[in-house]
Amino acid sequence: MREWQLRVDDVADPTPGPGQALTKVLACGICGSDLHMLRHGAEMRATMAELVGSAPSDPMAPKPFEPQHDTIMGHEFCCEVTELGPGCDNLKVGDVVVSMPVTFDAQGLHALGYSNQYNGGYAEQMVVNELLALKVPNGLSPSLAALTEPLAVGIHAVAKSRIDGTASAVVLGAGPVGLACIAALRMGGIGPIVVAELSAKRRQLAVQLGADVVVDPRETPAIEAWRAIDGVRPLVIFEAVGVRGMLDEAMRMAPRGARILVVGACMQQDNIHPMLGIGRELNIQFVLGYEPAEFTNALQAIAEGDIDLAPWLTGTVTVDGVPQAFADLASPDTHAKILVVPS
Amino acid sequence: MREWQLRVDDVADPTPGPGQALTKVLACGICGSDLHMLRHGAEMRATMAELVGSAPSDPMAPKPFEPQHDTIMGHEFCCEVTELGPGCDNLKVGDVVVSMPVTFDAQGLHALGYSNQYNGGYAEQMVVNELLALKVPNGLSPSLAALTEPLAVGIHAVAKSRIDGTASAVVLGAGPVGLACIAALRMGGIGPIVVAELSAKRRQLAVQLGADVVVDPRETPAIEAWRAIDGVRPLVIFEAVGVRGMLDEAMRMAPRGARILVVGACMQQDNIHPMLGIGRELNIQFVLGYEPAEFTNALQAIAEGDIDLAPWLTGTVTVDGVPQAFADLASPDTHAKILVVPS
Repeated sequence: MREWQLRVDDVADPTPGPGQALTKVLACGICGSDLHMLRHGAEMRATMAELVGSAPSDPMAPKPFEPQHDTIMGHEFCCEVTELGPGCDNLKVGDVVVSMPVTFDAQGLHALGYSNQYNGGYAEQMVVNELLALKVPNGLSPSLAALTEPLAVGIHAVAKSRIDGTASAVVLGAGPVGLACIAALRMGGIGPIVVAELSAKRRQLAVQLGADVVVDPRETPAIEAWRAIDGVRPLVIFEAVGVRGMLDEAMRMAPRGARILVVGACMQQDNIHPMLGIGRELNIQFVLGYEPAEFTNALQAIAEGDIDLAPWLTGTVTVDGVPQAFADLASPDTHAKILVVPS
Repeated sequence: MREWQLRVDDVADPTPGPGQALTKVLACGICGSDLHMLRHGAEMRATMAELVGSAPSDPMAPKPFEPQHDTIMGHEFCCEVTELGPGCDNLKVGDVVVSMPVTFDAQGLHALGYSNQYNGGYAEQMVVNELLALKVPNGLSPSLAALTEPLAVGIHAVAKSRIDGTASAVVLGAGPVGLACIAALRMGGIGPIVVAELSAKRRQLAVQLGADVVVDPRETPAIEAWRAIDGVRPLVIFEAVGVRGMLDEAMRMAPRGARILVVGACMQQDNIHPMLGIGRELNIQFVLGYEPAEFTNALQAIAEGDIDLAPWLTGTVTVDGVPQAFADLASPDTHAKILVVPS
C-alpha cells in the first residue's frame, strides 16, 4: 500500500536483526481493518491526530507508518523460519510459527502490517521476533493457524465483557469480528447466542461457528429473537458492525442493565441518546486487540480442536490476487476470510 | 406544575390509603431534575416515547404524569406523620421520616414528585407508604435528613463505578449530582478526588464535601490536575455536567482503560467519537437513581456524621418562594441546594 492505494510490487529481502528470524509466509488472512484502512485511513489519521493532540505520547506505542511510503499489510500470518538472526536461539529453521503482529528492535516497537520498515504477511518473506513467536503444534495447518489472530480478538472481547454462564449474548453483525466473538462465546460455554446479520452466507457461517439463533434484522429484530429464546438472563450485546448509528441502535434494543461491547470500529463521529443509557443503566465497553495470553490461548484452542474454524475460510489467493480479494470481500455473500498464500 | 409552568396553588388535602400515612412536609430539597423537567420535559417525553416505542412496557414502572394536569414536584423530602391510614401499624403520629420518592396502592406504583395523583414534597402535606418510610434518628435536623435522597444518588454512582481504594476520581461538574458523588467518594475513602467546576462557589463547596483538588477547567484541564497529583492509578471520571459534548470531552481526556460514569443527564442527542473509546478501551457506565439499601445507607451516613453535608444547604424558601428559588438556582455562584420549608 502507498498513498492509500494497493500495489503489487517487488521489494528487497528483509534481514533478521538480533533476536529476530526471517520467515517464509505460509498463509495470511485479509482483515477487515485493512479494508477500513484503505478506505478511511487518511480520515482516521487526521481525526486521531486532532483528538489525541494534547495527550502525552505513549513511549511503548509502535511508530505510525507514513502513507507516502510503502506499507506491506497483513497481520494474521503463519510462517516458516528460514534464517536465524544473531542470538536467535529459541527457534530453528523449519519451525512453523505464528506471532502477535509486532516486532521490536533497538528503535522500539513496530506493528507488523502497519510499518514502513517491516513487511506484513502479504509479503513472501517477513521478520518475526523470537520472543513473540509461538510454534504451531504439529499437524495444525498453516491456514487454520493463521486464524489465531482474529480468534484472539473475539476471545479478548468476550473476556472484557465479563460475561459468564448466567448471561446470554446478542451479536450484531457476523463479519470477521462478529464471527470471532461467536466462536469465543461458544468456546466459553455461553448461550444462547443470538446473531443478527444481513448476509445469508454469513448467517450460515455464524451457525457453523456456534450461534444458536440467527436472524436477518430486516425481518426479525435481534432483540425479539432473544426474547423468544431467553429474555430473562442478563444480556451482553456485541456490536460488531461498526457503522454509524449501530451503537445507538444497540442502546435502543438493550434491556435494563445490559452491557454493550463495541468491537466494530466506527471511524467517524457517531450519535447516541444518553437518556437511553441513563434510563436503563447501560454499560458500554469499547475493546481493541488482545493480551498476549489471549493470543496464546487462541492458538491452543484451534490446535486442540476446541472449535472448528474451517468454515470461516472461504478462499485463497496468491499475492497477485490481493487487490481482487479486497474487492471480493466487499460482497459479504461470497466470502468471509480470504487467505493470502504467497507461493 | 401544569403545562410545564410552575404555579403556586391550593389543592385538596390528601387522604392516606391502606398502609399509607399522611404527613406534614418539614423540608424538601429542590432538585436539578425538576429544573430539567421544566425546561426539557416536553422534549424528553417525546424522545423517550419515540425511543422506547417498541420495547415491552415494564409492569413495575410508575405511571407517567400527564403534563396538562397538576403535578406537585419535590422528591427530596423529610416529613412528620400526622395521620395513619388503615392498617398502617409501623408508624405513629409525630414520627419524622424520609422515604424513597415512590408510593404504591391498588393501582400500582406512583413516583412521588412526578405524579398527577400524589403530592410531592413542595406541598404542605403528602402521603408516604409505611413500608418505605425510614424514621429519622433522633436529633438529626429535617434539613439534613432531606439530603438523604441526593446523597443516595452519589452513593449509587460510586457503587456502580466499582471504584476501590486503588483508583482515583475526576468529577466533572460540582452541581448537586457532582457534589453527591464527591461526598460519596470521600465516604468511601477514595482519593485523590479532582474536581473541575466553572463556579467558584461550587468549587468551594466541592472542597468542603471532600475534593482534594479543584480546578476551573477554563484555566486548568481536570486531567492535567489529576496527572499532577496522581497520573498513575486507575481512573474513574464522573461526568456530572450533563450537557451535549461533555461525554466526548470526558472520552478525550480519559487515559487508557478508564471508566466514565455518566451521572449527568444530557436530554438531547449527543455526539461521540467511538475511535477514542476503542483506542483506549474505555468503559462508559450510565447510572440512574439508587437501590433501597443505598437510600438507607445515605440516611445513616448523615445521621452518624460520616459526612457533614451542612455546607451543601445554601438557602430556604417557603412554598411561595419556589418559583424564585428555581430562578436563583440557575446562577450557580449563589446557591447549591435550596430547601422548601412549607410552614
